[in-house]
Amino acid sequence: MRISVLGSGGVGRTVAAGLAKAGHDVVLGSRDVTRDELVRWADAADVRLAGPAEAAGGAELVVNATPGEASEQALADAGAGELDGVVLMDVANPLDFSGGFPPSLFVANTDSLAERLQRAFPNLRVVKALNTVNAGVMVDPGQLAEASALFVAGEDAEAKATVVEVLASLGWDRNQIVDLGGVAAARGAEAYLLLWLALMGALGTPQFNVRIVRG
Amino acid sequence: MRISVLGSGGVGRTVAAGLAKAGHDVVLGSRDVTRDELVRWADAADVRLAGPAEAAGGAELVVNATPGEASEQALADAGAGELDGVVLMDVANPLDFSGGFPPSLFVANTDSLAERLQRAFPNLRVVKALNTVNAGVMVDPGQLAEASALFVAGEDAEAKATVVEVLASLGWDRNQIVDLGGVAAARGAEAYLLLWLALMGALGTPQFNVRIVRG
Repeated sequence: MRISVLGSGGVGRTVAAGLAKAGHDVVLGSRDVTRDELVRWADAADVRLAGPAEAAGGAELVVNATPGEASEQALADAGAGELDGVVLMDVANPLDFSGGFPPSLFVANTDSLAERLQRAFPNLRVVKALNTVNAGVMVDPGQLAEASALFVAGEDAEAKATVVEVLASLGWDRNQIVDLGGVAAARGAEAYLLLWLALMGALGTPQFNVRIVRG
Repeated sequence: MRISVLGSGGVGRTVAAGLAKAGHDVVLGSRDVTRDELVRWADAADVRLAGPAEAAGGAELVVNATPGEASEQALADAGAGELDGVVLMDVANPLDFSGGFPPSLFVANTDSLAERLQRAFPNLRVVKALNTVNAGVMVDPGQLAEASALFVAGEDAEAKATVVEVLASLGWDRNQIVDLGGVAAARGAEAYLLLWLALMGALGTPQFNVRIVRG
C-alpha cells in the first residue's frame, strides 16, 4: 500500500521503517527533507522523504505520527485538498508535558485529539489506532509474550477495515483488534494513556500491552 | 477482617456479600438500615447493617462503594473521627451521567476522585482499587478465563498491603496486582473507565478485564 507517514521524530521513523519492512511503499513527510541525518536514516530504512503536501499526494493511507500538539498544523501543511477522502491512521496522543512528567492530556474526557482532527478535516477518514502502545510494539507486536489487544475507533467502516489490514501486515492478530465504534470512542483509547504511563513506571519498561480476558 | 462497606446500591451489596462469603466480618453502612428489602438482602448475605458512623467505627478497612458524586458526603456521614487512620479501599468511579450514556468523568486527567477524598480526609489512608472491573468480577475474578490485572494506588505502603490481602481473599492473583504508586496514579485507573465503557459496548458484556502482556 502507498502510505505516507507524517512526523519525523522517533514514533514517525519507527512506524515508517516498520511499514516499509512489511512491504509497503512508504513516504515520510517532513518540512526538512534535506537534513543529512534524516536522509541517511531514510536510505537505511528504505523510506522515501518528501515535503508534507508531496508526501500526502496519492497516499492511500496517511499516518499521523506527529506530537499531538503539532498534529493539526501537520495536516494543514499536508493540505486539506491532498487529504480529501484519505484514511488517516491517527497514532498520536494529546500529551501535555507543560507540568513535567508524567504528562497530562491537553484534550480528554469529553473530547479527543482524533475528534478534533476529524472536525478540522471533515473529508479525512480518521481512524484512531496504535496510540495505546510504544512505537517499538506498534510495528513488532511479536516482541510481546502473547498476542495483545489493539483498539480502532472511527466513523468510516471501510477506513477501519483498511487500517485493520495495515495492522495485520505489521503482525497484529486480527482477533485481538477491537472496534470500539465511532471516533468519539477515541476518548477511551487516549485517556488510557494515563494508565499506560503509570504502568510504564510500575513495570519499568514501555514494552508491554494489555490483552482482553473475557468470562 | 472487620470491614465496613459504604454504599447500599448494586456495587456495595455485591462487594459486601463477596467479602462476607470470603470470611470477613462485614457491616454495610447505610442511612436507611430499616428498609425491608435491604434487611432481607443483608440476612441472606450474612452482612450486618448499621448507620454510616456506627459501621465505620472499629472497622480495619472501609470500602467506598458509593456513587462517585456521593462519596465525599458518605465519608462525611461516617465521620472524620471514626475514619482516622483507617484504610479506605476506594472502588468508586467519578461517573457523570448528566450528558447521557456513555458517561464522562466529573474529575479526570489532572486530578481524581481518590485524590479528592484523600485531600478531604487527610487521616484516611486511601487506596484506589477494583474500580477497573464490574462488581461481579470484583468479588469473583475466577469467572474470567484467565487471571487478570488489578491496579492499586495510594500513599501508604502498609495500607496498600492490607488491600492486597483483601483482594487475595476474594481470589485475585497477587502476581497480577500492579502497584501504580501514589494516589495521583488513580488518575490512570479512573481514566481507564472511558476505555472500559467503550469496551463494554464493543464486547457486549461488562464481564471482562485486561491482563498485562510483557516482552
